[in-house]
Amino acid sequence: MKTKTLPGPVVGIVGGGQLGRMLAEAAAPLGIELVVLDPTPDCPASPVCRDQIVGAFDDPDSVHELAERADTLTFEIELADPDLLERVSEKFGVEVQPSPATLRMIQDKLVQKRALQDAGIPVPAFRAVDSPEELRAALDELGTPAMVKAREGGYDGRGNVPIEDSDEAEKVLEEIAGRAMVEEMVDFERELSVIGVKGSAGHSPAGDRTSSDKEDEIATYVAGENVHEEEILRETVVPARASGAVRERAQAVAREVLDLLEGRGVYGIELFEREERSPSECSSEERSDSRGNGKILVNEIAPRPHNSGHWTIEGARSSQFEQHVRAVCGLPLGSTELREPVVSKNILGDERDSRKATLSGVDRLLAEPLVHLHWYGKREVRPLRKMGHFTVLGGDQSVEELLESARTYRRHVEFEP
Amino acid sequence: MKTKTLPGPVVGIVGGGQLGRMLAEAAAPLGIELVVLDPTPDCPASPVCRDQIVGAFDDPDSVHELAERADTLTFEIELADPDLLERVSEKFGVEVQPSPATLRMIQDKLVQKRALQDAGIPVPAFRAVDSPEELRAALDELGTPAMVKAREGGYDGRGNVPIEDSDEAEKVLEEIAGRAMVEEMVDFERELSVIGVKGSAGHSPAGDRTSSDKEDEIATYVAGENVHEEEILRETVVPARASGAVRERAQAVAREVLDLLEGRGVYGIELFEREERSPSECSSEERSDSRGNGKILVNEIAPRPHNSGHWTIEGARSSQFEQHVRAVCGLPLGSTELREPVVSKNILGDERDSRKATLSGVDRLLAEPLVHLHWYGKREVRPLRKMGHFTVLGGDQSVEELLESARTYRRHVEFEP
Repeated sequence: MKTKTLPGPVVGIVGGGQLGRMLAEAAAPLGIELVVLDPTPDCPASPVCRDQIVGAFDDPDSVHELAERADTLTFEIELADPDLLERVSEKFGVEVQPSPATLRMIQDKLVQKRALQDAGIPVPAFRAVDSPEELRAALDELGTPAMVKAREGGYDGRGNVPIEDSDEAEKVLEEIAGRAMVEEMVDFERELSVIGVKGSAGHSPAGDRTSSDKEDEIATYVAGENVHEEEILRETVVPARASGAVRERAQAVAREVLDLLEGRGVYGIELFEREERSPSECSSEERSDSRGNGKILVNEIAPRPHNSGHWTIEGARSSQFEQHVRAVCGLPLGSTELREPVVSKNILGDERDSRKATLSGVDRLLAEPLVHLHWYGKREVRPLRKMGHFTVLGGDQSVEELLESARTYRRHVEFEP
Repeated sequence: MKTKTLPGPVVGIVGGGQLGRMLAEAAAPLGIELVVLDPTPDCPASPVCRDQIVGAFDDPDSVHELAERADTLTFEIELADPDLLERVSEKFGVEVQPSPATLRMIQDKLVQKRALQDAGIPVPAFRAVDSPEELRAALDELGTPAMVKAREGGYDGRGNVPIEDSDEAEKVLEEIAGRAMVEEMVDFERELSVIGVKGSAGHSPAGDRTSSDKEDEIATYVAGENVHEEEILRETVVPARASGAVRERAQAVAREVLDLLEGRGVYGIELFEREERSPSECSSEERSDSRGNGKILVNEIAPRPHNSGHWTIEGARSSQFEQHVRAVCGLPLGSTELREPVVSKNILGDERDSRKATLSGVDRLLAEPLVHLHWYGKREVRPLRKMGHFTVLGGDQSVEELLESARTYRRHVEFEP
């Protein structure tokens, strides 16, 4: 049997932001080189990868050039164009992982939710709404408040508009300004996320990975807990402060999602842990289910490494970035085992105007022995822009203590005016 | 007080081999960019750092260019030219760390040994030998066998010639073909190494680091045990399989060495643990020393990250590469705490002729869940050339089991003929 060799393949990535940068950091030790396509000259990945092609994510010439220079293609941003990737894949005989079909399905939140629902995966109740009348009818069923979502193009909370009352239907749909759907507003205990990875068939199983010669290799990390503010992720706490049963259920749901998705790579799976409800609020199915299966709902899937998985760099045996590179290249997956409890905290731009990024107090942050810093190399700071993150782990601290430390340490650094 | 800011400084490195590559991998998360100077086009560091200047390590124009493009300079190879670095440092007002004086002292093994001895640091008995007569006289005192060493330019055992008998004096010195010294042949229990790092004064102490406003910050990792074959490092076992007292003594000696050395950065300190000797073989000082201080001798110092410290990437909280970048940039040091027992194993070129490097069986190696691979990106494999390494850690294995696993896993991969 032919084995994999080094030097490894060149991987072409659509997108060269912080995810591309951390992919490059993880690929180098494996002997795998990256070429990235990004419209921003000297994008975050650029100084640490083989080369950057400067061009739009959906520019045919640029994607062609990427395919010519790479042995396999992937993407680190949902703005990649699945049709173009499919055409290029065929023309140049270059694999795209995950599959463009999966990217297409995930890009439309309604199609994504329907696919999950059709596969029997628990999701919040939702309806397609193409007019104010349909939205009002849906609200009669789902109740208010509810969440109206743009089907395409939304991220970091953009494109999500809460609705309090049927009267607001026109206004909210105008704000969405495109195809829309509406979802029940889930009263959740906490937001969870599970980073999952899907590899090739045929690798020998080890650890908590499962595979056979015929089935794809699938692995999941322990469920983390996401703390959002203004719909932007601030912290991820690992393991999530939920019961063991809930965390296991979250991983089980994530595995169902991975089974459904086509193509190798890392997926970020965001979930809700629904608040405890009285029996009368639950369906008969939920009432008969002692494992609390009704408690976990899938919110959204990202077909790429995810902000809520940055903790894996120091907190797990193999990081989500290493896993994505391994999976895309058809290498066996690494271990997803948790090394120790960990909290990651984003370093976001503050509320002032956009300006040249200068973060001060970095020596104060690095003097904390349990801190690991990750700077993304973006030249401009903008309100709530993701500029970097750090993790805090070790020292026999509980996750509560780690979270408190992370919030204290965040105040060691600030962007200069 | 002015704090350190991000984006960080650009560090110019003389040398862009595997150490430069792993420095680049460690620098990126800290927001620090590297430019390397190396004569080999597309050297190992090249694809993961900001830029490479192609030129000889001691080429004045190239070192000037490096200084112009960097905020601070360092080196990852002893072939750097300390005089040139000193001149360039003055001309461009750019710091060089560690100090060129330290590099100069270490480049001459005799000067190095004398400096250690003068500082009261235990070393094997040695003599300068400029002629066969002097060598024969030295052997009368030191006994045979003994080790004749080239004072300059030796590495990986090159420049070291064992001598069995005084009759061989002429022949051995001819082989050395340069200034020489001779050392007693130490009967050692094992070879140890301690990775140490020297940072700036004034950072707040934490963990097992010591500093005050006036003293430099110094930190050491736990002592590892080096397994050599044909004078090339094959494996490092961490912690070393020595008694706790011996390991502590090794760290204490390493701290004395760090106190002696001038300049910030990581140092690899190779030591001998001398075999138990009968009281009559020991000096009176050694006999009265219950801590076994006579057991640890310094063999050699490297003023840079060291092959025997590669385990720190996964095995310690901060790697030797991150520490070197932090130290050179005047940032606080990271934690040297051991995360778990670990074995690193070099992937060396085999005995066949030099040829294009293709390593097969990589998927078999990566299927081992406790393995972390580091490939250096060298295009040609040559006999005993360092092509990569991997670490094995975790799974509640003892270091003996980890070492056995590492040797088994090494057979998963081989260079194609």
